[in-house]
Amino acid sequence: MPEINGPRGRIVKAPENFLTPDGIKTVFREGKSGRRDFIRQAFVAATAAGAAAGSALAAGNPVPSEGGDPNILNLPTHSTGLGQPVVTDGYGKPSQYETNVQRRQSPGLTQTTQASVSFAPLQSLFGIVTPSGLHFERHHQGWWDIDPSKHRLMINGSDAQIVKKPMVFTMDEIMRLPAVSRFHFIECGANTGMEWGNVAVPTCQYSHGMLSCSEFTGVPLKAVLDMCGVDYRRGRFVLGEGADGSSMTRTIPMELVESGEVLLAYGQNGEMLRPENGYPLRLVVPGVQGVSWVKYLRRIEVGDKPYAAKDEVMHYVDLMPNGLHRQYTSTQECKSVVTTPSGGQVLLDKGFYNISGLAWSGRGKIRRVDVSVDGGRNWRSARLETPVLDKCLTRFNLDWVWDGKAALIQSRATDDTAYVQPTYRQLRQVRGSRSIYHNNAIQTWLVQESGEVKNVQLS
Amino acid sequence: MPEINGPRGRIVKAPENFLTPDGIKTVFREGKSGRRDFIRQAFVAATAAGAAAGSALAAGNPVPSEGGDPNILNLPTHSTGLGQPVVTDGYGKPSQYETNVQRRQSPGLTQTTQASVSFAPLQSLFGIVTPSGLHFERHHQGWWDIDPSKHRLMINGSDAQIVKKPMVFTMDEIMRLPAVSRFHFIECGANTGMEWGNVAVPTCQYSHGMLSCSEFTGVPLKAVLDMCGVDYRRGRFVLGEGADGSSMTRTIPMELVESGEVLLAYGQNGEMLRPENGYPLRLVVPGVQGVSWVKYLRRIEVGDKPYAAKDEVMHYVDLMPNGLHRQYTSTQECKSVVTTPSGGQVLLDKGFYNISGLAWSGRGKIRRVDVSVDGGRNWRSARLETPVLDKCLTRFNLDWVWDGKAALIQSRATDDTAYVQPTYRQLRQVRGSRSIYHNNAIQTWLVQESGEVKNVQLS
Repeated sequence: MPEINGPRGRIVKAPENFLTPDGIKTVFREGKSGRRDFIRQAFVAATAAGAAAGSALAAGNPVPSEGGDPNILNLPTHSTGLGQPVVTDGYGKPSQYETNVQRRQSPGLTQTTQASVSFAPLQSLFGIVTPSGLHFERHHQGWWDIDPSKHRLMINGSDAQIVKKPMVFTMDEIMRLPAVSRFHFIECGANTGMEWGNVAVPTCQYSHGMLSCSEFTGVPLKAVLDMCGVDYRRGRFVLGEGADGSSMTRTIPMELVESGEVLLAYGQNGEMLRPENGYPLRLVVPGVQGVSWVKYLRRIEVGDKPYAAKDEVMHYVDLMPNGLHRQYTSTQECKSVVTTPSGGQVLLDKGFYNISGLAWSGRGKIRRVDVSVDGGRNWRSARLETPVLDKCLTRFNLDWVWDGKAALIQSRATDDTAYVQPTYRQLRQVRGSRSIYHNNAIQTWLVQESGEVKNVQLS
Repeated sequence: MPEINGPRGRIVKAPENFLTPDGIKTVFREGKSGRRDFIRQAFVAATAAGAAAGSALAAGNPVPSEGGDPNILNLPTHSTGLGQPVVTDGYGKPSQYETNVQRRQSPGLTQTTQASVSFAPLQSLFGIVTPSGLHFERHHQGWWDIDPSKHRLMINGSDAQIVKKPMVFTMDEIMRLPAVSRFHFIECGANTGMEWGNVAVPTCQYSHGMLSCSEFTGVPLKAVLDMCGVDYRRGRFVLGEGADGSSMTRTIPMELVESGEVLLAYGQNGEMLRPENGYPLRLVVPGVQGVSWVKYLRRIEVGDKPYAAKDEVMHYVDLMPNGLHRQYTSTQECKSVVTTPSGGQVLLDKGFYNISGLAWSGRGKIRRVDVSVDGGRNWRSARLETPVLDKCLTRFNLDWVWDGKAALIQSRATDDTAYVQPTYRQLRQVRGSRSIYHNNAIQTWLVQESGEVKNVQLS
């Protein structure tokens, strides 16, 4: 067993700007009451039978019939009664038993709740699609629900020669243009950022939850630039600008636009974008960190050099060991994480488990994922669920029989450029340990003999 | 121009058990106020400026600054103010401007609202994923939100030899087994059923909206049957039984189970199934009509012959021209529909439009989709959005410039068995016109010179 750098899941020294000990306890409590814990919940319900009897649903479930043969169960109400009608809600909601599955803000991580983050509950999700109601949030000055009938997109150039015919589009005009639909992941460049400083946050939601995946629908930006008469010899960069108060602006190399991958997107998972995710229009820049997927997109400027915007100079840069900042490192490198079992979850007994997780690469498709249960000494190849798509999450699964002893669970992804996800040791050799952004190291979860799973970092 | 069998979109003779004239007007009104009509909505907003001024959002949008240079616009509030915080809702909702996009019941179609249907708003959807909140509903005795900690799945045989080791599973036990995730469409066998009787319902939502598509996660039923010691030589059929009051039971041939495609599913689009869709457990039977995807699944019985259950004898059978009923025709044949433009929508002016729609086949993948704008005289191949998956919706798109004249828009899908979606004439030659189920004929939308789109059936 490799040396473990302290039982990090407990985090007694939580920095003040992150989770408080109370916050951690809350996360643990929530994790333990999650969907993986039906049996324990049932026990709790049984001991609190008096309280539960007031619930129609509890009362409706099978109980031995009084005074009769104890082997004959009364049928539950749902097997004998008339249920709820259709269109109880024109837009449906999850089960009342799933309210624990929600996105969460990390208390104290940010100074305001408007310039902040909420994390997707990866530990509770299946497959690759993130339900739009659970998609992570990252706002720089809060979110808005902008009236699409009044929203406009302007295309202009840094000078009159680069864009010969500047144009302003209504949403209606954009939605009439040729559309494409594609599945892509979006990951914040700061995802897993706390781990640079060895702050092993307790759950997968907080360590990797600035990650989501959707089917996006929109118009290739290239098609619109063509309409505007762009001079592609000089116009080698575009600037995307958002309509919210943060005036978010990001430079995107024209090569990405010319590939046809960059979209003016209005659709997400079959419906319009959600307000928190940029309704009615955002950029989709596959493989690139989320900050470049400018929300509430109101303007595209074409220029002949990078714009060195605020969020490209002060933020989203990599502090290297030599003290210099590395800029414009936008592509999200190959990465993976085991979501089950993961920090904050509890294995209730020995036996069979399905190890499941997510892998992704900003460079292309996932070629393979290997899983270790002994901290990286031995590896087995996981099954990849299909479809395996370009710059998209890939779900992997692997059978595992837990013998009740401590285990160190890791996943290591390889993409179709043959790049292999690095260990922390390998990553730190190049990047040092003072970064915030672009941490794609192998994650380790310690399964303790008690069954409790903790976030640890192998030295 | 082929002969049109009356301007069917108007439906003056709506049967009493379907839409009333008032209901049709409502649908039309709703269609016209949909997202494709931003410009007209903007005009309405402008003429109702007094009322709109009360809205913070309306007030926040660009207006010329008073008394100043009319070319200098005041910035909208959302570009200057502080927006909403993260986790305003732990489970997010669509924009307030999208409340028109919802599932709808067809007034009068069914005698109760519990044994009824709600239709997915296909005309407003993008790509292939149906948001779970908009997934169509079909209940036989209403829906329930069943406590997963108390739900059980029993596996037994019609006799003791067919299943050697009958078992009862908790949800926790099922969710520990090896899982797979797959995208599949689900279509009610009665989808497009009203069109058999030439009742051209006004919108795509009501004509084709018993159709949805999700990423499902679950355990192959085969794996669980193996655990129970099934004798596959004798056990050639399984019966799925639901826990709701309708006691829904359906026979599924063991070949489908043995292929590994039939799933005990708990996950849908990344999260747990919704209560309306069978939470916490349903069958997924790819390519087969929705009724076989038994919801609230509580029991699987293995037997040596089909069960001739209520819903296999009285319902979901095809009345043939010779007066006999055809039984066990469960596979959904290759079909497609143009969702934009479609009935109830209005084209506001001539010019470019993106014709978009959905194609699917219960036999496999979609190979091609052809689109006609002249009622089937000339066809062009549409672009298929990737991924094109087995027994899954495929989104197609095709450029079209509308010249302002009447047009008859059709789509015709071909699957990878080389089966071609039939015309109504071809379908009726085999099936007659007295069926309810399994109508996969080519749909025609009439674009009138006014821009209004109507459902018509070519004779």
